Amino acid sequence: MKLAVIPGDGIGVEVTAEALKVLRKLVADLETTEYDLGAKRYNATGELLPDADLAAIREHDAILLGAIGDPSVTPGVLERGLLLNMRFALDHHVNLRPSRLYPGSRSPLAAQPEIDFVVVREGTEGPYTGNGGAIRVGTPHEIATEVSVNTWFGAERVVRYAFELAQTRRKHLTLIHKTNVLSNAGAIWTRAVETVGKDFPEVETAYCHIDAATIYMVDDPARFDVIVTDNLFGDIITDLAGAVTGGIGMAASGNIDASGTNPSMFEPVHGSAPDIAGKGIADPTAAILSTALLLRHLGRDEEAERVERAVEADLASRGTDPIVTSEIGDRITAAL
Amino acid sequence: MKLAVIPGDGIGVEVTAEALKVLRKLVADLETTEYDLGAKRYNATGELLPDADLAAIREHDAILLGAIGDPSVTPGVLERGLLLNMRFALDHHVNLRPSRLYPGSRSPLAAQPEIDFVVVREGTEGPYTGNGGAIRVGTPHEIATEVSVNTWFGAERVVRYAFELAQTRRKHLTLIHKTNVLSNAGAIWTRAVETVGKDFPEVETAYCHIDAATIYMVDDPARFDVIVTDNLFGDIITDLAGAVTGGIGMAASGNIDASGTNPSMFEPVHGSAPDIAGKGIADPTAAILSTALLLRHLGRDEEAERVERAVEADLASRGTDPIVTSEIGDRITAAL
Ligand SMILES: CC(C)[C@H](C(=O)O)[C@@H](O)C(=O)O
Ligand SMILES: CC(C)[C@H](C(=O)O)[C@@H](O)C(=O)O
Repeated sequence: MKLAVIPGDGIGVEVTAEALKVLRKLVADLETTEYDLGAKRYNATGELLPDADLAAIREHDAILLGAIGDPSVTPGVLERGLLLNMRFALDHHVNLRPSRLYPGSRSPLAAQPEIDFVVVREGTEGPYTGNGGAIRVGTPHEIATEVSVNTWFGAERVVRYAFELAQTRRKHLTLIHKTNVLSNAGAIWTRAVETVGKDFPEVETAYCHIDAATIYMVDDPARFDVIVTDNLFGDIITDLAGAVTGGIGMAASGNIDASGTNPSMFEPVHGSAPDIAGKGIADPTAAILSTALLLRHLGRDEEAERVERAVEADLASRGTDPIVTSEIGDRITAAL
Repeated sequence: MKLAVIPGDGIGVEVTAEALKVLRKLVADLETTEYDLGAKRYNATGELLPDADLAAIREHDAILLGAIGDPSVTPGVLERGLLLNMRFALDHHVNLRPSRLYPGSRSPLAAQPEIDFVVVREGTEGPYTGNGGAIRVGTPHEIATEVSVNTWFGAERVVRYAFELAQTRRKHLTLIHKTNVLSNAGAIWTRAVETVGKDFPEVETAYCHIDAATIYMVDDPARFDVIVTDNLFGDIITDLAGAVTGGIGMAASGNIDASGTNPSMFEPVHGSAPDIAGKGIADPTAAILSTALLLRHLGRDEEAERVERAVEADLASRGTDPIVTSEIGDRITAAL
């Protein structure tokens, strides 16, 4: 298994080290190549994602990413030039984000509901395309546009992926959008669910607007099994999902090219958290759970389940002691 | 006081009746004119917001709206053709949405945090402008765009309103956006906060991305005092705010033309709720609290406070009995 590793910035470096402990124990033929991408490289050389790095990264079976972002760099530069650049260049059209309230974890919701759903977020379209611009910048007449680009091609393939996933789960798929306002894009998504749904007669479908979805996420998250949604709504709803399942420190994600043409990339949903970086107190669970998604993506279901079970056991046995990054990594690795 | 009343659809009709009970008791010179707009009118005549109605509505001091939307009409038609049409035609650029966890109300959050903030949502720009379109509709090559339009003029005026409001409150203003991805629009908003902020040196400012904002809304909503944000992010975050403060049944809103040129419109944040319409079990509190916003907007601060105090008293004394719409209206009216 040839793995490109991009520890990135801040706690990304720390949690990636723990994720690698887990992978090394499980995968005998693991070959890792580290790529120095992120704030340090950018500040030293001005480089974000040089062609040579991207070409080299393409040669791997998968990519493990820590986190990107540092206060020393203008907000957005690393995100767009590196993270989104990679998602787009490698056609990571399925952004897979499971949410579970693990036994032993506490939700900030008083009801402690059962939460176990997966968000399938589109990863290469919507308002993330960088379309749009501005004129008369800095004058009283400034106008700026952001263009959300939506294609049948893009929606259909991710909706199909979501139906396939729902078919293996509780057979329920919810589309989240804002069709009452964004009618052009909404029409594509609605039609994609109707059309692809004909191939999955057993999967029940539901729809809710993004605003109402945030209410359900708080009042009744158990209603969700698989959610399919666009790039921006997926960004928003998965952070909220992370919060209600007891913290973004447990939220894993996969940026997947479902065609298999390009290597897929696995990363915790959380960011580089400069405020706690370097202290060894970041929770590596999201990074470790991302390796489970990586293993499953590469067909190693059995190993993926071992990771998930070890994480579950660790969460169930955690007391109220403060988190020590390396100890959690060691404990989970030992429990594999 | 000349009031245009649009009860609208579903529970809109029921909660508006209660809001009017309150206003009639407080305002001796109240003159109301009802406008039959919504699903019934549309289904009977095909009319959404005829010019004659709009012209007549303009002649009032303010507008009281119940809710718009019915399953008999294609989703989006009434919303865009009537509700958004009105917000745009009357230049309702400030969409004011206070969130409070009232004593006696329970939040679904285990922590029962102190929640008392106001969202100032832009109401006439962003992805709500109806810009965009689609080509090759229904083919595998369909492309649809949604264009978010953002102007300095539009952002500056609503940011200024938000600063003025923050100045009268806890002097803290948070901008919510997604500047790391939507860089063109983000630049306008960021610069508007920096620039207008110079006129309000006492107001502390903060920024958070919309995705992170949903986490804060669950983990630490007490951090917010005044929030300023664009049309779409405001739509999303205010529904979530409604949920964490114990339900969208208490969330009031004002669609305000701060220039005073056009009448402002006051409405509960909730929709027409066809599932419970006609049963007399909708909570009229959000509609009644919207009349407090209306009264304050028309300079009747003292009456506005009486409404708020009567609502507070009612919420504090509510048991677990099921809600009866007219009883709550009667109780609050009696307590004025
Ligand atoms: C860092 C940012 C560009 C990114 C996104 O918006 O996709 C992040 O929030 C995420 O969810 O992975
Ligand atoms: C009904 C819909 C068009 C509207 C909006 O998106 O603004 C509603 O959700 C609201 O928040 O008032």
